Amino acid sequence: MVPTLYWDQDAVMILDQRKLPGRTVFIPCRDMKRVISCIKTLAVRGAPAIGVAAAMGLVLAGARIRAKDPAKWRAQFAARAELMRAARPTAVNLGWAVERVLALAAAAPDDVPTIKAMLRRESEIMLAEDIAINKALGRHGAKLVPKKATVLTHCNAGALATCGYGTALGVVRAAVEAGKKVKVIADETRPLLQGARLTAWEMVAEGIPVAVAPDGAAGALMDKGLVDLCLVGADRIAANGDTANKIGTFNLALQARRHGVPFYVAAPLSTVDLDTPSGDLIPIEERDPGEVLAFAGRRSAAAGAQAINFAFDVTPNDLVSAIITEAGVLRPPYNRSLAQAKAKRSLKVA
Amino acid sequence: MVPTLYWDQDAVMILDQRKLPGRTVFIPCRDMKRVISCIKTLAVRGAPAIGVAAAMGLVLAGARIRAKDPAKWRAQFAARAELMRAARPTAVNLGWAVERVLALAAAAPDDVPTIKAMLRRESEIMLAEDIAINKALGRHGAKLVPKKATVLTHCNAGALATCGYGTALGVVRAAVEAGKKVKVIADETRPLLQGARLTAWEMVAEGIPVAVAPDGAAGALMDKGLVDLCLVGADRIAANGDTANKIGTFNLALQARRHGVPFYVAAPLSTVDLDTPSGDLIPIEERDPGEVLAFAGRRSAAAGAQAINFAFDVTPNDLVSAIITEAGVLRPPYNRSLAQAKAKRSLKVA
Repeated sequence: MVPTLYWDQDAVMILDQRKLPGRTVFIPCRDMKRVISCIKTLAVRGAPAIGVAAAMGLVLAGARIRAKDPAKWRAQFAARAELMRAARPTAVNLGWAVERVLALAAAAPDDVPTIKAMLRRESEIMLAEDIAINKALGRHGAKLVPKKATVLTHCNAGALATCGYGTALGVVRAAVEAGKKVKVIADETRPLLQGARLTAWEMVAEGIPVAVAPDGAAGALMDKGLVDLCLVGADRIAANGDTANKIGTFNLALQARRHGVPFYVAAPLSTVDLDTPSGDLIPIEERDPGEVLAFAGRRSAAAGAQAINFAFDVTPNDLVSAIITEAGVLRPPYNRSLAQAKAKRSLKVA
Repeated sequence: MVPTLYWDQDAVMILDQRKLPGRTVFIPCRDMKRVISCIKTLAVRGAPAIGVAAAMGLVLAGARIRAKDPAKWRAQFAARAELMRAARPTAVNLGWAVERVLALAAAAPDDVPTIKAMLRRESEIMLAEDIAINKALGRHGAKLVPKKATVLTHCNAGALATCGYGTALGVVRAAVEAGKKVKVIADETRPLLQGARLTAWEMVAEGIPVAVAPDGAAGALMDKGLVDLCLVGADRIAANGDTANKIGTFNLALQARRHGVPFYVAAPLSTVDLDTPSGDLIPIEERDPGEVLAFAGRRSAAAGAQAINFAFDVTPNDLVSAIITEAGVLRPPYNRSLAQAKAKRSLKVA
């Protein structure tokens, strides 16, 4: 599998996902600005991948700060961290990663070279952890997948949305590794076609059968009994289980409820934001209308038309059958199960 | 407004909607085969337009039959009619138009030139009737539109889907003509982008504000209170009110119910099929997967991926707030209201 991002000496190498599936191109980032640009333009996307990219970008920022006095260095670093935090608003993993790096910088010895080295090491740990978390999450989730099943997914919650293996697609991978026969239906996911381009690409590479469907197809597919379960990722999960994910996810959840199909969210606990009580408080990014009006640089909509381009929607918790995390499969009431899982996780880390 | 189709002497001129909004090109059809090809390839689309195109195509077929004996002529004509009926499976207006033309041919005097002339005249009547029906339907529907309203629509149920004025967009036009301030949000409607290409084009031409949204946006838009009502067309309405329409429509209806937004279907009574008791019995066309795997003629999906391409879904009657027809606004229980409206209509015609 092509890596989503990695360290090449002092450069953060970011796979340019905008060019997939046609071309495999890495963008070498030697400063934080370049990493932020990759995040904003979706060269790297997916909440867990954004989190680790942010940590790596901050390492680059930290390395460039000339101050030798730790207090001065930390003050300048904190200012850089706010720039990174503002790169995209919805994925909470971005803020989570920034906090984690800032906490480490604060706790590190008062020696700038040591802080820099620790940050670099921390970013490498976060990358490795992310893959391990996805594998754990995948094993838990695989138990929910029937021996023979068709999974409907939306956007790309795969290896490409993470540092490897994936969340929703990690569950698919783990189920296949456990000997289950899994087929995937990938919503193409307009406007940027992460399903058709990225999810389909990952599944083809794994030899897992995959069919692309238009985003409007959930009702017809479920009516025809073609879907056994829905599996999606998340950009932010509120304390009550309301889940922000790529625009269109809410439709799958509603159709799943209507048709008695289970609807599962797969995400690391770093995507759970206990500070946001409910989904209506999750900031929803609005992106360039041009993404909707055109495709691959060609205008598709009538001249003179405007466009609305919310990048995410919020699936209410009552439609979520379970949330699959590295700590296990969490069930409603989510206020309790999410808080408990996060508390245990903090203990383990501390 | 550019006409959808018209008679130019002995040719049926069909606007090639595949080329819109870029180019305005008419396809001259001098035989039925060409008309069938236009219907199959969606050069002409939209249930009411397909119905009239079918009638016009049958006139071309009838004109070419050499038999001078009325019985022989009628037998050959009936065979041609079956070819036309098979052009596309879901829109019931196609079968309705074929039946209407066959009934006229059967009832006409036993003289081939007279039959031919009567069929030609009938096709002209059907075209004019369709526009008049849409205007009547629009007036009824406009009463349901608030003085200031944003309408979410799907696919194109406009002038281009009919012989003029439109069904769902006919309601929008009538509301605007009645002095109401209406904005339209047009789902782009993958895979063939009838919303982004055709609905947006029609609304821009009328000076009605229009914004294109991805098909997955209904939940986010309604969550944010941006939609006052949904207005869609129909390809076939079963006797119980279950409604087949462009894939993705069902999502709008479910979201509308969840958010307390009215969901209206606008269609002529020729779209109501009392012979189909419920939506699960409506044949759903499956089209070329290539439509989903590509975008505006360019491959967009990963190589090796398959696709699922149902052209329609069926919105269950419990999600339909009302059905707007030329006979008025019909309410549940639809088994009764649809049958009554169709019965009155038959009396009027007879």
